[in-house]
Formats: sequence, structure tokens, C-alpha cells
Amino acid sequence: MKTVNILVEALPFIKEFHNKKVMIKYGGHAMIDDESMSSTVRDTVLLKYVGMEPVVVHGGGPEITRSMNKLGKEPKFIKGLRVTDEETMEIVKMVLVGKINTNIVSKMGVHGGKGIGISGKDSELIIASKKDPHKIKDNDTGEEQIVDLGLVGKIDSINVELVELLTENDYIPVISPIGIASNGNTLNLNADTVSGEIASEINAEKLIILTDVPGLLKDPNDPNSLIKQLKISEVENLIEKGVINGGMIPKIETCVKAIENGVESAHIIDGRIKHSLLLEVFTKKGIGTMITK
Amino acid sequence: MKTVNILVEALPFIKEFHNKKVMIKYGGHAMIDDESMSSTVRDTVLLKYVGMEPVVVHGGGPEITRSMNKLGKEPKFIKGLRVTDEETMEIVKMVLVGKINTNIVSKMGVHGGKGIGISGKDSELIIASKKDPHKIKDNDTGEEQIVDLGLVGKIDSINVELVELLTENDYIPVISPIGIASNGNTLNLNADTVSGEIASEINAEKLIILTDVPGLLKDPNDPNSLIKQLKISEVENLIEKGVINGGMIPKIETCVKAIENGVESAHIIDGRIKHSLLLEVFTKKGIGTMITK
Amino acid sequence: MKTVNILVEALPFIKEFHNKKVMIKYGGHAMIDDESMSSTVRDTVLLKYVGMEPVVVHGGGPEITRSMNKLGKEPKFIKGLRVTDEETMEIVKMVLVGKINTNIVSKMGVHGGKGIGISGKDSELIIASKKDPHKIKDNDTGEEQIVDLGLVGKIDSINVELVELLTENDYIPVISPIGIASNGNTLNLNADTVSGEIASEINAEKLIILTDVPGLLKDPNDPNSLIKQLKISEVENLIEKGVINGGMIPKIETCVKAIENGVESAHIIDGRIKHSLLLEVFTKKGIGTMITK
Amino acid sequence: MKTVNILVEALPFIKEFHNKKVMIKYGGHAMIDDESMSSTVRDTVLLKYVGMEPVVVHGGGPEITRSMNKLGKEPKFIKGLRVTDEETMEIVKMVLVGKINTNIVSKMGVHGGKGIGISGKDSELIIASKKDPHKIKDNDTGEEQIVDLGLVGKIDSINVELVELLTENDYIPVISPIGIASNGNTLNLNADTVSGEIASEINAEKLIILTDVPGLLKDPNDPNSLIKQLKISEVENLIEKGVINGGMIPKIETCVKAIENGVESAHIIDGRIKHSLLLEVFTKKGIGTMITK
Amino acid sequence: MKTVNILVEALPFIKEFHNKKVMIKYGGHAMIDDESMSSTVRDTVLLKYVGMEPVVVHGGGPEITRSMNKLGKEPKFIKGLRVTDEETMEIVKMVLVGKINTNIVSKMGVHGGKGIGISGKDSELIIASKKDPHKIKDNDTGEEQIVDLGLVGKIDSINVELVELLTENDYIPVISPIGIASNGNTLNLNADTVSGEIASEINAEKLIILTDVPGLLKDPNDPNSLIKQLKISEVENLIEKGVINGGMIPKIETCVKAIENGVESAHIIDGRIKHSLLLEVFTKKGIGTMITK
Amino acid sequence: MKTVNILVEALPFIKEFHNKKVMIKYGGHAMIDDESMSSTVRDTVLLKYVGMEPVVVHGGGPEITRSMNKLGKEPKFIKGLRVTDEETMEIVKMVLVGKINTNIVSKMGVHGGKGIGISGKDSELIIASKKDPHKIKDNDTGEEQIVDLGLVGKIDSINVELVELLTENDYIPVISPIGIASNGNTLNLNADTVSGEIASEINAEKLIILTDVPGLLKDPNDPNSLIKQLKISEVENLIEKGVINGGMIPKIETCVKAIENGVESAHIIDGRIKHSLLLEVFTKKGIGTMITK
Repeated sequence: MKTVNILVEALPFIKEFHNKKVMIKYGGHAMIDDESMSSTVRDTVLLKYVGMEPVVVHGGGPEITRSMNKLGKEPKFIKGLRVTDEETMEIVKMVLVGKINTNIVSKMGVHGGKGIGISGKDSELIIASKKDPHKIKDNDTGEEQIVDLGLVGKIDSINVELVELLTENDYIPVISPIGIASNGNTLNLNADTVSGEIASEINAEKLIILTDVPGLLKDPNDPNSLIKQLKISEVENLIEKGVINGGMIPKIETCVKAIENGVESAHIIDGRIKHSLLLEVFTKKGIGTMITK
Repeated sequence: MKTVNILVEALPFIKEFHNKKVMIKYGGHAMIDDESMSSTVRDTVLLKYVGMEPVVVHGGGPEITRSMNKLGKEPKFIKGLRVTDEETMEIVKMVLVGKINTNIVSKMGVHGGKGIGISGKDSELIIASKKDPHKIKDNDTGEEQIVDLGLVGKIDSINVELVELLTENDYIPVISPIGIASNGNTLNLNADTVSGEIASEINAEKLIILTDVPGLLKDPNDPNSLIKQLKISEVENLIEKGVINGGMIPKIETCVKAIENGVESAHIIDGRIKHSLLLEVFTKKGIGTMITK
Repeated sequence: MKTVNILVEALPFIKEFHNKKVMIKYGGHAMIDDESMSSTVRDTVLLKYVGMEPVVVHGGGPEITRSMNKLGKEPKFIKGLRVTDEETMEIVKMVLVGKINTNIVSKMGVHGGKGIGISGKDSELIIASKKDPHKIKDNDTGEEQIVDLGLVGKIDSINVELVELLTENDYIPVISPIGIASNGNTLNLNADTVSGEIASEINAEKLIILTDVPGLLKDPNDPNSLIKQLKISEVENLIEKGVINGGMIPKIETCVKAIENGVESAHIIDGRIKHSLLLEVFTKKGIGTMITK
Repeated sequence: MKTVNILVEALPFIKEFHNKKVMIKYGGHAMIDDESMSSTVRDTVLLKYVGMEPVVVHGGGPEITRSMNKLGKEPKFIKGLRVTDEETMEIVKMVLVGKINTNIVSKMGVHGGKGIGISGKDSELIIASKKDPHKIKDNDTGEEQIVDLGLVGKIDSINVELVELLTENDYIPVISPIGIASNGNTLNLNADTVSGEIASEINAEKLIILTDVPGLLKDPNDPNSLIKQLKISEVENLIEKGVINGGMIPKIETCVKAIENGVESAHIIDGRIKHSLLLEVFTKKGIGTMITK
Repeated sequence: MKTVNILVEALPFIKEFHNKKVMIKYGGHAMIDDESMSSTVRDTVLLKYVGMEPVVVHGGGPEITRSMNKLGKEPKFIKGLRVTDEETMEIVKMVLVGKINTNIVSKMGVHGGKGIGISGKDSELIIASKKDPHKIKDNDTGEEQIVDLGLVGKIDSINVELVELLTENDYIPVISPIGIASNGNTLNLNADTVSGEIASEINAEKLIILTDVPGLLKDPNDPNSLIKQLKISEVENLIEKGVINGGMIPKIETCVKAIENGVESAHIIDGRIKHSLLLEVFTKKGIGTMITK
Repeated sequence: MKTVNILVEALPFIKEFHNKKVMIKYGGHAMIDDESMSSTVRDTVLLKYVGMEPVVVHGGGPEITRSMNKLGKEPKFIKGLRVTDEETMEIVKMVLVGKINTNIVSKMGVHGGKGIGISGKDSELIIASKKDPHKIKDNDTGEEQIVDLGLVGKIDSINVELVELLTENDYIPVISPIGIASNGNTLNLNADTVSGEIASEINAEKLIILTDVPGLLKDPNDPNSLIKQLKISEVENLIEKGVINGGMIPKIETCVKAIENGVESAHIIDGRIKHSLLLEVFTKKGIGTMITK
């Protein structure tokens, strides 16, 4: 009986988001074990069955690092960006496309969803070009240094025709964040950015980023200080104040850009909490930070 | 949190019945007040939103009787069938099509469903002909008497093209059980029969009849004696034994015929229980009697 | 032979109006008996068969009054608008939707047309809100009085998606002039207004209003004083002069508004004359008043 | 008023033949002057506008003979078949396709129809092969002679894809009776045969052959002896008796074959009578001979 | 092996022009014998098979003159335009539509292409009106004379709906350059102009005019002085200088107008050279004069 | 000029295979370097552009072995089948899906083709189950041994809906030969078998297997002993005789099964020869062994 009462309570949300596209970013840190991944995938399939059109972009940092270690290759990061030589790129590709993506797609099948794994290389979905080298100031000497990140790319253009063909035909596209350069090279892309850009291109209603934090916290040490609602106009000020900082800055900026490009709302939620996806979509209060115009 | 757990539990059923047609018979006795009607309508809309294709046939006996009384016209029944002279037929039509049907359709709108009220007269949906007169034995004298029921019809053919056009375009057809004779006359039809025949024609997955009893009871006086599962092969024997009797006989026969014509399962459930529709569809146990091949 | 000559003469009109939508308002006073109704319906079906797309809106004042009398309820009018309490609304609905509309649709079937009866409540076709109370000046005392008309509505918005789905699939929609309020209430609407508004929304080529007068007369007492052609620019002047007066004012205003919204021509014709509809559409002279830009 | 009454009388026929294909054979002898051609074309366009799908095949014997005379080339016939050498074939093609067909198509445009002139050579509509030489007995000497008719063909196969594309898109195909041989050669075909074969392939409802006689006459000298109805089972006997003879034999045989292949009825009517086409289709009595199963 | 290398070399061009429309003007002087015609038709079919959408307009001057001579009628030209009386028009129509067009279409069939012969009269493809009479100055006397060219037309409007229906359904339209006047008259049109106008209307990528010269020559007497590339801005100057002169002026002007209306490039090439069509489309150098913006 | 002559020579084949599906198996041994891969991909794209519908299945044995070596894991084979433990399966997946497949798809983009990399796991394209353990006889001792191959699968069912959606929308599906078990496990599949089974399911016209031998040789040591044509009825005898032996047996059996299931012809060709794909498809002689019914 409870089941049914609750289903009925979800009806207004089911109606509101009917036939709406939802971009979901699966975070590498958010889905640390097989069960948590499985649960998130099942929730995604549920969204599809109750009438929404989910599209997934996944990350995979921890897994890539693990594989590199296995191969005796040391990961190197500069300001949170993985320095990517050709050998690393090969590993990134194999782990993202060959391991994580196929894993997600398999789980979708088990839960009755028709997942299709694609990457930015399929039919030139994401055209990218090499990122400009970073300038880094040495804290000690104060000298500037120019660092080339290697095969790390920035998105030049996105061709979502394939994504739309798939969603229209009831598939759930699962996208690995790599891009293709004009010379055919593979480039390593930031998964958050990819999810935001594609969300804009497909006119998604929502962009939901699954992370390993409860959302945006006023005080990072106090999990009870969650900011539940945020307008994009407030962001700049919060960055200046340092409330938004570190790795949260690019995530929030991705959200802001997506909203400016027409996405209705962006959500940063804790992927480690069971059913966080459904709780955010189907309850009034939600469980993370919702960013809107 | 509970909400979400429960939604997840419904997923297997949501998947199983995705894009499947469900014929729901709203019983006149089952929806005695506005709130109970409203609740049933909302549940029907929910079925639509989670991917099923509901089609509704409604009855309306009590309401018709009420209206006749108001107009100072005495209702007359023979063996449960309303004797229908022209004046009665006019009232039947006005109550079913003009009052009950529009009422259902309004409530659908309020809950976000796109209901369309039609009757067997729209584009000749239900072609019917006058029922043969009944032979009745007088219990006292033993004499046989032939009684003409008037404008009571039996279904000759059904043209579901319109129903299918509407469901394909996301509308919920709400059908009043009247038929059209070849001379243009209106005929009064049994709503259960109509629901069963249309269920067959549209290849419904389920036929659900909302009544004012818990289902088929082994012992009519013991509501705990509910028969939860019934195979159509067992029906004849149960009729002979008298377990299926009275008004339950035509209902069960409607179910049997529908299943023989390809409907997967038929359900007789208690429409007075809140959310009985959802409980029957989305839980393993169900709450009424399910009849299958 | 004559038949055929005449058919050939109609060819230019058949060509001109091919695949064009025609809104036809069936007037309650214009179709006083069954035969006259039958004849109008057959002509409407003929329009469909020779390639036009008729949509019907019907009235029903006299019938409603008759039914109210039968139920011992006295009709009350203020300035031609029916004061509509809840009980009256119930009767209005039953008569319009349950009686007149089903009657029209039945007759269409008999003549080979696929009529579908709908009302403003079906899939929220006509969203309406309660009309503001009327201010009335007492002729004797000169005092102003505010009179609430009850459940009489004005149209807020029209959603013709359903109407277009039906016409595209060769059905003839027959629309009862009631609206649905945001709270689900039914509201009584003026049928002329409904026909005009829907004509605009579906981009009808013609709006034809069947009445019980020959058209607009220069001298209401002289049926030979028919104004055959009228430009909308001339209307204001004719109202001032009193040529257009009484019940003709809202009819003409409906026509003017429809034309301003893109309908090519509006026609006020005498529905009591046999085949008036065809005579107006298929002959050069027509038989009523044609209003154009 | 008469116009309209008559239109209404045609309604049952308009309904019956709605969306049905009608193959019309324009006879060379039946349309001797420009006005008679014009009138027949206008009637054909009318059929289109009231919902039928006409397809036209035309002949052109008299015109071909006229052109040959102009070029100083003597026409030669054996048993009614034109002996067709290469030069003759060239003339046949030019007259049929370049003159008669374009003339019909022009007239269609004038009357508002979208005629498209095609021949059996367009996208290999009619694949034909050379007819076997005729054996002729010399009446005087009794000797048998073998006569080669030249480029006279018999139909091997018909590809009506193009015809169906055109009718579905509201065009009226006008077909010249020439065929293409596998080597690309043009072959002269009998127009009656072509009309019958294409009527079968497109599943025409009717095959109407316009000739210069009133139909099949019991007594060829008595125009009042018209046989109005004929069953295909009666044909053989009538041929034996000599009632069907001469040029009427192949016409009737074409009709019989078409009906055996699924055409509902075949009609031989007098194309010289004004509106004969409409009179045959839209009146109960018709004006020529109707052949049915 | 060579075959295959070369196919691979053509790939970039095949890709570039995939699904692009190409208007090809077959010149009367360019295709003087059956074999040359056959070869050009086969190349056109090849373009279709490798993914382009060719549309053909053909001329026929020499053939018309030949036929007129045969009929003892003397051709008359004024400034390159054929004076066309009614009898001549009849011959023009028969030769263009009945002979040349059917000939092209037959050859297409032989090479596996689905050619459809149409003319400006089919479904009123080309609406034209009579050209204004020419003023000519007598060289001797200096007197001005007004000469009526007869049934020579200028294009008023083009309705390419039919052409687009055919190309979308994999047919190759082959168009004879005659137009229809509002009174149904046939008018003789310049084939180059027709090809240019239709190229614009169908948004062709290329307009290719097959002539009997190598292209535009700097020095008409030196076939090695071919101008390979020409911008439309250079045309005026070249006309003034006399480099573009005589019959080349209207051809170039047709090209300029087509390009101004959106055609990407126009090509004047030598139709007498085998495979000139393919050489122009599939090689970088081309073989004629290419005109672009 | 040569280019064009040759293009024209390919026309009959281009016509014959227009809109036909071609399954191409890219062999791991056949495409040993980047350039050879690149060339084969370009040829595949060319097939697409000239109107065929290629679908690719790729292998990857050598690459997998290379990667295993890098990770210090020793590959183990039993009768040519890779023993696949979980760790090996992970590597297989990463190499096939993450490396080889993305590599092919990238190259397609460079040559203008819209490749989409999928695997048997995408929307449950290939449902497989674990292969039964092999029985092996020890050559020395004669003892039988049962060997479990681990995660090596056999195909249970194929769902080509996705493949057909992609080809219909002008994509080129590139398929990695792994399957999904009902429990979600990944299974290693034989690429030849996968190509054969999918070829059957999509009703391919041709199955082309690119290998590192010239085709089927009568004498394996004599490359000039190529059997150019083979009927499936001859296969059994050739196996018995030992002409078909070793690794060629499963390849030929795959071909035979595909042909029995409706594929028109199967081809075993030498992928190391440049443009072998085009030479086989577009020349009469071909370059490998063609197997037909």
C-alpha cells in the first residue's frame, strides 16, 4: 500500500519531466563499488521507463589511475588535469571505453534498459583540439613555467545527431569523455565539461552531476551547511568569498554555462547515497544543490 | 526515501507493462463518490505516465436510476437488465455521455491526463443490434412469458481504429457503453461486455474490472475467502458448484471470452479500495482475482 | 444528365475549397426538427467527401430549455445569457453532450461520415474562466445592479491539437460548447463564440453560422432586403445605424474577429432552408450574408 | 437549387468510390474534336476532386494516320493491327507522346488537375516484346502467309510503382501506350490492352473504356438494343453467337481479363456523349455496358 | 587494380557531392549521334548510383530542323531564336517530347536508371508567357522593324514540386523545354534558360551545360586558350571585350543568374568528348570552364 | 581519363549491390599496421558512398596477446581458442572495445564515414552463454581431459534492431565480438562466427572475411592454386580430403552457415593486399575465394 501511495506522490514530477531529456554525469568517485554503480544504473533505467530521456556521461579517474599503476606507469597531474602522453591516452581510452562504459551498458541490459556505449569518436560526436599549455607559477621561485598537458583537449564542436537518434529510439546513450581531433588523434576530455556541453546541445531539462560530496556546502567541514538552491547570479560572489572553491569551481561553472545555454536546472548531488538520483528528481526537497536561472 | 525505494520496487512491473494496453472498466457501484472517482482517475493517469496505454469504459447504473427518479420515471429491470424504452434511452445517453463521461474526462484534465470522451456512436465505434426478447418463466404459474427489453443491444462489431488513433497520440479514450444500430438508433449496452470486447479488439494486455466486491470469493460471506488466481479452465466447474453466481457470472464470462481472444489476464478488483488499480498492477500479490489462461 | 451538368458547375468551388477547413455552426433554432438536422448533417458529410474538412460546433438553447421545463426548473436569462447555476450546468452538459451531440454524430454515421463528438472538456480543448458579473441598470429606478451569471464562461485558450488530429484522419469533429475551468469546473459557453474562436485556431477557410434568419437584413421586416456581401470595415457603421442589432450583434462580431484572425470569409445563412449549406458553398450567388476583409 | 439536389444525389456514389482508383481509356475515335477532349478531361479532373483516383491511358489511331499521310507515308493494317516499321514507330511515338499526351496534360492543367504525361518507356513502366508474326490465309488462293507486323509488341510486365507514387501525390498519370523492349527498342501497343493490364496492376475499382459506340448492342444496327449489364460468364456464349464481334471482341476480352484480375467492374461507354464518364459513374442506370463478375 | 585506385581517387568528389542535385543540360549539338547520347546517359546514371541527384534538361534544335525539312516546312530564325508558328510548335513538341525525350529515357532504362520524361506542361511545371516582339534594325536601310517570334515564350514561374518528388524517389527527371501559357497554349523555350531556372529552384549544387565547344575560349580560334575558372564578377568585362560573344553570351548569362540564385557552380563543357561529364565532376582539373561566385 | 573509364566499368557492380548490406570481417592478422588498417577503412567508406551498406566486425587476437604480454600475463590457447579467465576477459574487452574499435571508428571519421563503435553488450546485441568445456585427448597418454575455456561464449541470439537503425541512418556500425550473458557477464566470442551470424540476421548480400591468406588454396604451399569459386555442396568433400583444414575450417563453416541462412555469397580474401575489398566487389574476377549456393 505504501508503495502505491508513494508512486502517486511522484506523479506530479513524472508528469513535469515527461519526455524531457536529463543529462546525468556518473562520477568516478561517486560510484566506487559495483553495487553502487548497479544501483545508479537501475535508477537511470527507471527514469527512462517513467517517461524521461536520460543520457549518461561517465568519468573514470580512479579506475584509470589504477590501471596505470598496474602497468607500472606513474600518473601525473597538474592543477587537477591529468598529463596525458600517448601511452596514457591509450590507457585512458581502453579504461573509459573498453571497461567502464561497457560495464555501465551491461548493467543497463540487466535492468531492462537499452544502453548504447559511445564515445566522442563515434561519428565525430565531439570534435576537440589540444588544450593550450598551462602557465604555472613556481611558488618558491616565483618563476613562470609553461607546461604542456599532452593529449588533453578542449571541445570545439558537438554533433548530437547520433545522441538524438538513439534517445528517440528508446536507447540510453552512455558517453565516454574523449574527443577526436581533426587529425584523427584521440584527446582526453573533462567529463563534467562534456556532460554540460552535450546537455546544452540536446536541450536537456536537467543536468545532474553525481559527485562524492553532498552538494555545495557553505562550510565544507559541515555537511549540514548544504546550499539547496542557488541562482546563477549568486555564483560569482560565492567564488570570490571562497565558498565555491577547488574542484567545485569547474563543476559549478559547467552548471552555469549549461543553464545559460538553455538547460532548466543543474544539480550537484551525492552519488554515494542510495537512490540519490531519484530523490533529487522525484521529491520536492531534493537532496543536493540545485542551480537555476 | 521510502518513496524512492518503492518506486524502484515497481520498476519490474513498469517494464513488463511498458507500451501495453490496459482496459479498465470503471464500475458504477465502485465509484460512489466524487473523491473515489477522482482517485481512480488519477491512478489511471499515472498508468499512462509510466508508459502503459489505458483505455477506460465506464458504467453508470446508479446514476441513471437517480436521474430517472428525478424525472419521475420508474426504472424497471428484468434479470438485471434495464428495460429501456425510448425515453429511458434518452436519459441513459444523457447521463452516461453527458454527465459521467464528461465528469471523468474533466478529472483527467485536472490530473494532467488527456482524456477523450467517446461513445459507441462516435464514428460507429460499436455497431449493435437489438437483443432478442427474453423468455421468463413465471415462478408461480410456471407459464412462459416473452419480455422485450426495448432498446437493449448486443454488440455486432467493433471498429477500434479511432481508439487506436487516440492511444497512439497519447490520449486516454473514455468510452460510454452505448451502441449504434444500423438505422441510427441508440442501444443500451452492458458496460462489462463492452470493456471485454474492446479489450480483445485492441489486443489489451490486461482487462481490469473495478467492482464493489473484493473479487471472486469462495464463500460470498467471507471476504477472506478471496480466490487470487483462476484459470479459465476452472471456471465452468465453479459455476456449476455455485461459487461463481449471480451478477458475477456475466463478469467472469466476459473475462473468459477476452482471454480466449488474446487478452493476457483479466482482473476483478475492489474499486472502493483506494489505489486498488495500482495495487493490482504494481504489486506481486495484487488485491483481487486474476484470471489467466 | 442534369445531375452531371450541375456537378460540373460545382467543380470550380470544389477545387477552390479542396483540403480547406470549414467551421460550421449548427444553430439550435435553425435545426428545429429531426429531418432538418438530418439534411444538414448529410450536406456536411458531402462537403467532407468532395474534399473539404468540416468541423462542427452546435448550440442547443431550445432543447436545454425544454429539458429544464421537464425537470420543473425555470430557465432564467439576463441579456440573452442563460443564468447557469450548478444544477442548470448539469442539465446543459447532459443535453449538449449527451443528447444533441450524440444525435448529430449518429446521423453522420448513417450518411457515411465519421463524426466524433467532443466537448471543450476533452483533453482540455477549451480552457475557460468564469465571466465577470454583469452590471445592469434598472430601467425604472436607474439603479445599477450587479448580476452574477453563474457558471457562464469566457474562453481563455483553445488547444486544437485534438481537432487537427481528427480532421487529418478523416473524422468530422462535432464540438459541444462547454469549457473547462482550471479547477475542473464546467462552464457554459456561447456556441457562436466557440465556433469563431476554433475557426481562427484551425485556420479555417470559412466560418458558416446556420441561423433562423435569411442573413443580415437592411430592414428586418423585409426578407428581400438581404445584404449579400459585407466588408468588416462596414460593420461599425451598420451597428451605429442600428441595421445590425440585437442578437445579430454578437454573431457579426464573432465573424469580424474570426476574419481578423485569418479566416477568409464568414457566412450567416438560413439553416431552415434545405441545403442552405451547399447553396452557400457551391453557388456563386450564395443565399446568405458573406462577410470578408 | 437543382445543382445542390443533384450533388446530394451523387453522394452515395461519391462515397462508394472514395479513394478508389479508376482507369479511364480515352479512345482515339471517341474524342474527335478539341471540345470533346476538353470536356472529357474536365470530367476526369472532377473525379479526382471528389475523391477518386483516375489514371488515364489514351489511344490515337486517327491522329497517327493523319500524321503519316502528311509525311507521305501510307498506313498499313493487318487484321486491325498497324504494321509498324521503324519510321512508322517514330511517328507513332511522336504523335502519341509528343502531341496527344501533352495535349491532354495541358487541358488538365487548365481545369485545375495535375496531369503527368508518361509512357511505357518511363522508368520501364511497360516491358514488352515483339509480337509473333501473324499467319494469314489468302481468301483467294487459300495459301497461308506469314506476316510480320514489325514493331508491334505484347506486354511482358508492368511496373506500376511510378503510377502509384503519382496518384498518391495527387497527380493524374496520363499514359501513352508504347512499351520498351529489353534492347531499348520502342514497341507499339494496343491502348485497350494497356489500360486493362495497368488497371489490374494498380487494383483499380473500375475500368472505363470510352469508345464511339453506345456500348455492346444486341443488334449492332439498333442503338436501342444496348446490353446494360453483362456477366463475364456470359461472354463466351455471346461471342459464339456473334453478338460480340469485330473490334468489340478484344475490348470485351480486355474487360474480362481485368475483372478476373480483380478489377470490380469494366464499362464500355460512348465517349461522344457529353459527360458520359460522369453519367456512368454517378448515376444508377449508367449509360453504357457494365461488365462484372 | 587500376580500376580500384581510381575509384578511390574519386572518393573525395563522391563524398563532396553526395545527395547534391546536379542539373545537366544535354545540348542538341553536343549529342550528335546515338552512341554519344548513350554514353552521356550512362554517365548520368552513374552519377545517380554514386549518390548524386541528376536532373536533365535537353535541347533539340538540329533534330527539329531535320523534322521540319522532312515535312517541307522551312525553319526561320531571328537572332538565333526560332520563329515558331503553330505548325512549327506542333513539330517542336512532337520532336522534343515524343522523340528526343523518350529516346533519352529509354537509354536510361537500358543502363539501369529510372528516367522519367516530363515537359513544362506536366502539372504546370513551367508557366510561361509569349515573348515580346523583337525590334530589329535593318542594316541597309537603318529602319527599325518589329518581328513577332510567334509561340516563343519566357518563363514566368516554375513549380518544382514534381521534380523534387521524383528525385526523392530515385527517379531521374528528363525535362523537355516547353512551357504552358495561362490559356493552355504551348510555348517554345530556350533549353539553356530552362536548365538554369530549374537548377535555381531545386537548389542544385551544379549546373552543367554540355555544348559542342571546349568551354569559354580566350581566343575562339585557339582551343588551347580555354578559361578554366571564371568568377561571375569577371563576366561583364569579358563581354565588353568580346571574349564572351555570340551564342556564348546567353549561356554564360544563364550560368551567372543560376549562381546568383544559389547554385554553387556552373560548368560549360564539351559534350562531344567521351565522359566529359564525369571528367568535370570527378577530377580536380575538370575539362571545361567552371563559373563560380 | 583512365579514372573515368574505370569508374564506368564499375557501374554494373555499383548498380547490382546498390542498397545491399555487406558484412565485412576485419581480421586481426590482416591489418597489421596502421596504414593497412587505414586503407581498408577508406575502402569501406567508399562502399558506403557508392550506395552499399557496410557493417564491420573486427577481430584483434594479436593486439590482445601484445597487451597481455605488457601486463605480464601469459596467453593460453587450446585448439585455437583463447582460454579466458576474468582478468583476461577484462583485457580482451579493453583492447577490442577501447582500442581497436575506437581506432577503426576514428579512421572512418577521417575518411568521411560515420562509424559507430558498438559491442555485443550494447542494448544486448549479442546474447551468449558459456561454451561447454572441451574434451581433449592427450596425444601421449591417450587419456581424455576436460578443459574449461573460461569466459568463452557461444551465441544464443542476436538482436539486430540497433544495427539496422544505424545503417538506415547512414552510419557504419563497427562491432566488437563480445557477448553478454544473462547474468550480465561478458563473454569472449569468435569474430568470424559473429560476422557470419550478424550477416544472416541483417540479410546481408555479401559476407567478406579479410584474412592473411590469398583465399582457399588447393595446395597451401602454392599461392597460385587459389580456388576462385566454391559451392557449399563441395565443402564437405574438401574437408574430408584435407584441402580445407586447420584454421580455415571454422572460417569456411561460418561462410556455409551464412549462405544457408540467406546471405548471397561469402568471400575469403587477402586483407594484406591493397584495396582487396574493392577488387573483390568491383571486378568480375575478384581476388579471393567466393562461396555461393
